[in-house]
Amino acid sequence: MFELLDSINTPIRLRTLHHAALAPLADELRSFILHSVGATGGHLSANLGTVELTIALHYVFQTPDDRIVWDVGHQAYAHKILTGRRDDMPGIRQFGGISGFPRRCESVYDCFGTAHSSTSISAALGMAIAARNTGESHHCIAVIGDGALSGGMAFEALNNAALYPDLQFLVIVNDNDMSISPSVGMLREHLGALIANRHGNPEANLFNAMGLPYTGPIDGHDLPELLRALRTLKTCRGPQLLHVVTEKGHGYSPAAADPVLYHGPGKFNPAEGIRKSPSASLTYTQVFSQWLVDAAERDSRVIAITPAMREGSGLVEFERRFPERYFDVGIAEQHALTFAAGLAADGMRPVVAIYSTFLQRGYDQLIHDIALQGLPVVFAIDRAGFVGADGATHMGQFDMAYLRCIPGLTLMAPADEQECRQMLQTALQQEGPCAVRYPRGTGSGIAPGSELTTLPLGKGVVSRRSTQPRGQRIAILAFGSMVSVALQTAALIDATVANMRFIKPLDTQLLQALAREHDWLVTLEEGCVMGGAGSACLEFLSSQGACLPTLQLGMPDQFIEHGATETLLNQYGLDAEGTELAIRRYAQALGLGCPAAPSVFHQASA
Amino acid sequence: MFELLDSINTPIRLRTLHHAALAPLADELRSFILHSVGATGGHLSANLGTVELTIALHYVFQTPDDRIVWDVGHQAYAHKILTGRRDDMPGIRQFGGISGFPRRCESVYDCFGTAHSSTSISAALGMAIAARNTGESHHCIAVIGDGALSGGMAFEALNNAALYPDLQFLVIVNDNDMSISPSVGMLREHLGALIANRHGNPEANLFNAMGLPYTGPIDGHDLPELLRALRTLKTCRGPQLLHVVTEKGHGYSPAAADPVLYHGPGKFNPAEGIRKSPSASLTYTQVFSQWLVDAAERDSRVIAITPAMREGSGLVEFERRFPERYFDVGIAEQHALTFAAGLAADGMRPVVAIYSTFLQRGYDQLIHDIALQGLPVVFAIDRAGFVGADGATHMGQFDMAYLRCIPGLTLMAPADEQECRQMLQTALQQEGPCAVRYPRGTGSGIAPGSELTTLPLGKGVVSRRSTQPRGQRIAILAFGSMVSVALQTAALIDATVANMRFIKPLDTQLLQALAREHDWLVTLEEGCVMGGAGSACLEFLSSQGACLPTLQLGMPDQFIEHGATETLLNQYGLDAEGTELAIRRYAQALGLGCPAAPSVFHQASA
Repeated sequence: MFELLDSINTPIRLRTLHHAALAPLADELRSFILHSVGATGGHLSANLGTVELTIALHYVFQTPDDRIVWDVGHQAYAHKILTGRRDDMPGIRQFGGISGFPRRCESVYDCFGTAHSSTSISAALGMAIAARNTGESHHCIAVIGDGALSGGMAFEALNNAALYPDLQFLVIVNDNDMSISPSVGMLREHLGALIANRHGNPEANLFNAMGLPYTGPIDGHDLPELLRALRTLKTCRGPQLLHVVTEKGHGYSPAAADPVLYHGPGKFNPAEGIRKSPSASLTYTQVFSQWLVDAAERDSRVIAITPAMREGSGLVEFERRFPERYFDVGIAEQHALTFAAGLAADGMRPVVAIYSTFLQRGYDQLIHDIALQGLPVVFAIDRAGFVGADGATHMGQFDMAYLRCIPGLTLMAPADEQECRQMLQTALQQEGPCAVRYPRGTGSGIAPGSELTTLPLGKGVVSRRSTQPRGQRIAILAFGSMVSVALQTAALIDATVANMRFIKPLDTQLLQALAREHDWLVTLEEGCVMGGAGSACLEFLSSQGACLPTLQLGMPDQFIEHGATETLLNQYGLDAEGTELAIRRYAQALGLGCPAAPSVFHQASA
Repeated sequence: MFELLDSINTPIRLRTLHHAALAPLADELRSFILHSVGATGGHLSANLGTVELTIALHYVFQTPDDRIVWDVGHQAYAHKILTGRRDDMPGIRQFGGISGFPRRCESVYDCFGTAHSSTSISAALGMAIAARNTGESHHCIAVIGDGALSGGMAFEALNNAALYPDLQFLVIVNDNDMSISPSVGMLREHLGALIANRHGNPEANLFNAMGLPYTGPIDGHDLPELLRALRTLKTCRGPQLLHVVTEKGHGYSPAAADPVLYHGPGKFNPAEGIRKSPSASLTYTQVFSQWLVDAAERDSRVIAITPAMREGSGLVEFERRFPERYFDVGIAEQHALTFAAGLAADGMRPVVAIYSTFLQRGYDQLIHDIALQGLPVVFAIDRAGFVGADGATHMGQFDMAYLRCIPGLTLMAPADEQECRQMLQTALQQEGPCAVRYPRGTGSGIAPGSELTTLPLGKGVVSRRSTQPRGQRIAILAFGSMVSVALQTAALIDATVANMRFIKPLDTQLLQALAREHDWLVTLEEGCVMGGAGSACLEFLSSQGACLPTLQLGMPDQFIEHGATETLLNQYGLDAEGTELAIRRYAQALGLGCPAAPSVFHQASA
């Protein structure tokens, strides 16, 4: 079926092909990717756009000696396929399978792992300096999209690159006019002007101004043009920049026409295209999306900010309704937060919609610009906890630990969709920074309603009460998404379940009462145990001298693999089965009372 | 003495002056600042450079309606003096006095608090959008140094600014060719070219390329020229950029000649200049500095990286000795870390020298680029804990909490200078990321020696043993700088003291033994209690069901004010007196055994 492609398991073999064979190879590769992603789900548009560039790079450069760092890395499927992982593609992004991103542990050709944006120039520059300092002569290449180039750290790296005229260092700007959403910003305008003036020479060229000799723009789907440019640049001494224009979704018209829809689809039939089936239940993202529009209707101070995640964060409808109050700032988390701080300082109520893992990029700004000044910024933290197929780079694992230590920050986690809406509204009413963290995907199906009601600050609720006598009375203190798991587990061990709601301020009254009324405790959260919400409970109990055994359950102290969230919950012991087992083991190890399986205590109480 | 200045307590009064009076006012203001900083210590060079610019801004614009955001803010003394805080200057940076940086709570003229670099454009842009959306017409101005402009978030904000042609928004680049150290990078080269070509017009103008109409360069000490430019720009519609050239230390020749030395001096006599007196004991920064040079001599893989903190981080000697292995990347923490990751990926052993508070800027890069890939990067984290006069924005308060949750990271805190050197060497020997956190200033005076020895990984030591019988046997688990305080406190209550050395991996064997042999525990750290090292102890004890009362002492859940570190330690109860008191109170509240004052138990044991 793939005559050429089937014979290529390494770039070394690729480099033996006649250059005339490369265009047919590109066709096969594109078809392979399309059907592979159709069968597994994954990133499509970006990968269809980089087929020729990938072939040309491995053809011209001596990989793996020459280093290619793929910024973001979701466009590296062609690279994976050409570097010996074609047969692994059916398992991509699945538990135990290969990752959707480059990983050093996966292949010698993956010289640097990526996934978060804008890192490639820094990493490749580090490699180029390492080569220089050890007297090696290989090339180091960063392939970065125009969207990723809007991230400040890419600029920080550009600011350094041309300082070292003796490096074999090449930056390739893969310009497809897109982040996941369409690119925004003056850099975008500038790249557009460079393309529009390809036969003139725009006076102001940003890259030349930064000391990086600019080549381009060239057509990134024209293999002869690519080969010519790369071969020329390979002979140049010193840092260089090549501007390559590609089309996201190239070669598959539905994706080229709607690259956002085809950015990261689930399984689909390429012959039919994606068929949208209306989902029965709302995702948390949709709950946020509806709340935001409703809140903005009532309160003109509400402003929405996204670092280039309009679709993923649920801001499409808000932008349509309130264009003057909608800000996609580009892949620029640092700016997003301090921009919000400026708005809040002058009376607005900015809502920053951001993924847990990307909030790590704005950590200092959250502390220094927002919390220290007590400014009322609302954080809608999506993808908190397990994120599924994107894997280790995207897990929302750390936010409770790194947010909880910030003075004056309120941090909540909803147990269901209705609570999510209430918490967002509660956050909007506060005079200081507030964050609501919610998981990827759907909740337990509790309709959020259309009211704008709030919850009492710092108060949890008891969702289930143990009927056990003293001696084997257990309370599970559950946070957010884990409340439903706690309830399932509790049914097996007849435990009390508290939906704590607030990670900060913690409901210390409730905690004290639970400690008093139970023999031992379990904390349960979808986040890292180290420093997480459970530790907040320990800290308070310890301050009160309330010394009762407390088992902390949550994400372990390791990076979490990719895979379906259900699989991961099971794998890491955070489904009902796993938590029951962990609780019983702890009880056994410490000789604590723990009711037997349900049938038994039902009999006992009968 | 200050005829003009004494009459000006508000910018409103300033604006009644004839413009011919402004130059004499500038002379008075400069003289006032010089003598004020001479008397109190503080930031000097930067403040002498912005006297005319400050006068001109308040003269032309209608502050506080018009907003001025001072990037970094250490150059805002003239602003403070002209906005009603002249009489507060003798108390600047001292406990209970005004801050060395702009603060919203201090004055209506401080519209946005600053201290960390590169935030001003984002904040002012937020304010400009708030004005636009509420139909107000005031101006929003960001004053940003050329050094601060190298920070990626400044670029992220520039990338957004020109998108909104209806804003009253002005960016002033205060170009003095300096960060604290001399500025580096291609942006620096570009600004230099703009100055060199002031009568030509360099073809490539970065700011024009970013859509921001460029005016300049103009002489920032020439008041008529400043007034002319600002008045013109005030009438322009839409975002504008003004390039102002100033001299750090202007008007005081010792500072102009050595702006680094005069960046942030202690008290000195302006007539004599700074007299360096050799200090008796080494600072931790000097211990690091010596170790780094020694380690680099033995190991050619050692590379040193600083985000624009050559002097503060102790890299002057390293740069002199190993220029090819020294990298000042500009104020660019994100890039600094991923650049280090690239170096480590290709066999180097990068050492990132960074302040605790600034590491917050590279948090995501530490997780995503370094720890996730298990790359051997060493972090020399200076200014961990109380930092003294710089205050809330600079406290190294959170690092243990935000680092401890990162899988695979080793985190150490030395009790003294010798241990600091050993820990750095230990870090260099590991195959994954390692951080050593040490405080500002000097240690307990233990000479670090010249050997390159290591410490056993994850092992603490018992520094003192309680002689008390069971019932009142207390162990203090102390981390880093707090070991010496713990020893003083322990002498008062005859407690055991463990120097835990490692925050991660924790010495769980030692912890278990201490829990077994003592009646209750105290954890003591110079960092936030929430999620900190003490919580690590609680987590482990809890996992073992070792339920003994544990008092956590450390920095409270609030932002810490400025003041001398000794004052702050006392204020926040972290000197021997404070910790003894806290321990006794905890014992009393919980009815725990605690030996009485030393004289008593000395008698008892006699």
